[in-house]
Amino acid sequence: MRIREVDLYPSRMAESAEIARRTDPVLYGSPADRARGPLSPAELALYARDGFLLREGVLDAREVAALTAALDAALARARGATVPEVVREPGGDAVRSIFAVHDADPWRALAQDPRLSGAARQVLGGEVYVHQSRINLKPGFEGKDFYWHSDFETWHVEDGMPRMRAVSFSVLLDDNHPYNGPLMLLPGSHKHYVRCVGATPDEHFKASLRRQEYGVPDRDSLAWLWARCGVAIPTGPAGSVLMFDCNTMHGSNSNITPLSRRNVFVVYNSVANALVEPFGGTRPRPEFVATREGVPR
Amino acid sequence: MRIREVDLYPSRMAESAEIARRTDPVLYGSPADRARGPLSPAELALYARDGFLLREGVLDAREVAALTAALDAALARARGATVPEVVREPGGDAVRSIFAVHDADPWRALAQDPRLSGAARQVLGGEVYVHQSRINLKPGFEGKDFYWHSDFETWHVEDGMPRMRAVSFSVLLDDNHPYNGPLMLLPGSHKHYVRCVGATPDEHFKASLRRQEYGVPDRDSLAWLWARCGVAIPTGPAGSVLMFDCNTMHGSNSNITPLSRRNVFVVYNSVANALVEPFGGTRPRPEFVATREGVPR
Repeated sequence: MRIREVDLYPSRMAESAEIARRTDPVLYGSPADRARGPLSPAELALYARDGFLLREGVLDAREVAALTAALDAALARARGATVPEVVREPGGDAVRSIFAVHDADPWRALAQDPRLSGAARQVLGGEVYVHQSRINLKPGFEGKDFYWHSDFETWHVEDGMPRMRAVSFSVLLDDNHPYNGPLMLLPGSHKHYVRCVGATPDEHFKASLRRQEYGVPDRDSLAWLWARCGVAIPTGPAGSVLMFDCNTMHGSNSNITPLSRRNVFVVYNSVANALVEPFGGTRPRPEFVATREGVPR
Repeated sequence: MRIREVDLYPSRMAESAEIARRTDPVLYGSPADRARGPLSPAELALYARDGFLLREGVLDAREVAALTAALDAALARARGATVPEVVREPGGDAVRSIFAVHDADPWRALAQDPRLSGAARQVLGGEVYVHQSRINLKPGFEGKDFYWHSDFETWHVEDGMPRMRAVSFSVLLDDNHPYNGPLMLLPGSHKHYVRCVGATPDEHFKASLRRQEYGVPDRDSLAWLWARCGVAIPTGPAGSVLMFDCNTMHGSNSNITPLSRRNVFVVYNSVANALVEPFGGTRPRPEFVATREGVPR
């Protein structure tokens, strides 16, 4: 007999959308966790208030060059590949993302780097593990938009992540400008939970990694959040690291400029928040999208 | 027997792209034309250098409200319509553009307004007529990108516009921000002519008004222009007017924000530059895209 966890964040179950208050903390770390660094108390306060934090100059030029070279090599291997980890742009063959990169260097080392994992432990408290990793290409000339979403909504419904206790890190490998499709975040939106409309079909992820059709927030809720939160577009040079809470509403426009906007994306989840059965009732998505095996307990 | 004009700007005829120098002036007006206003000598110089000019506060709030109300009414009429003047977003039913609006008020009055037509006469010299007009919706949440293009390249190949002697005016009906899909222009690109690759199929316009597939500049040429020119994103409040030369390379990213970016678009051509047979050898596009009848001579 399966024991289902209580669903604190139901979504895709009602006919109309609803905005609920977040019931989880944003900062979980004990005073000792928080004091450990690398984030200063002021940075932690900003992160808690806005649901994101951009830190410039975290990686130096040599580190960025090494990650970029590894990305180019991975992209060259991926071009002809038809493995599920390689996701292509909607309506095209250009590679959009390569998932599950953190098993091999240099990404394994990056995921273990205290500049990322240490910051994750500071906000999540205690031990963490990599829930998901990927390279996002956002290529020049043809990078398509990512519609608004809360990562947590998907991870909860489709992967069975029980609580909001995860944090994402985007390591910028290109300078981010207002015009090459940078991430847009709604500051403070992490304190609200937008319940989406409609159920989730099985195997939805095969399409949704290219273009989301379920678990999409409705326009009224987005307009409400926009009016309340405004928008932030944290642009900055390559080597910057953008971290954001799992429930921060974010998205990005397309990129027709010649300047790609590549990044490495690493998501940490608390070991106290390991995945259970998906709350949407579908089969769990595969390991390359959401780590289930090998979670330290 | 048809007499063909000499093709000074061949395009879509070769297997590889090429960048040619513009052989036409940018400012055609005589000293008397230029002195007439509304543009100052400094504004004319900026326009000549960059290939565009943003003027804020040209229309007041009342005028913007009247044009917006007319646009809403036109949009309501267009929703169920299947007339060719109403063009929809690629992959959707949302209205992207409504063409040929300048036969009826308030757009007829706008097209005759000396703040637009007077500025057109200043730069083009002598009499002008409306080559094309349209409302662009760029709706919130779903406005798609417009890929890079020189309007002149299309007007020359598909409509038979002989020379670069036309100017476009975009009247902003919404505040333009960096994030709601504003127009991006490559300053100085109007002095270069990118010959595109590939021929044009007949009736191409039915698809190209939604998404361009022929007459698209190649990536090397765009990267070359980008490196040479940089990019300008002239954002500003509703009521601003952006004017740009017919050969200025421009495009825009998508718009997933809740804020629409609507504008009225009026193109003036010199009566001395009236259309001839399309230089691409296809049949002329219909009147609603490119005025042929009723051109004052």
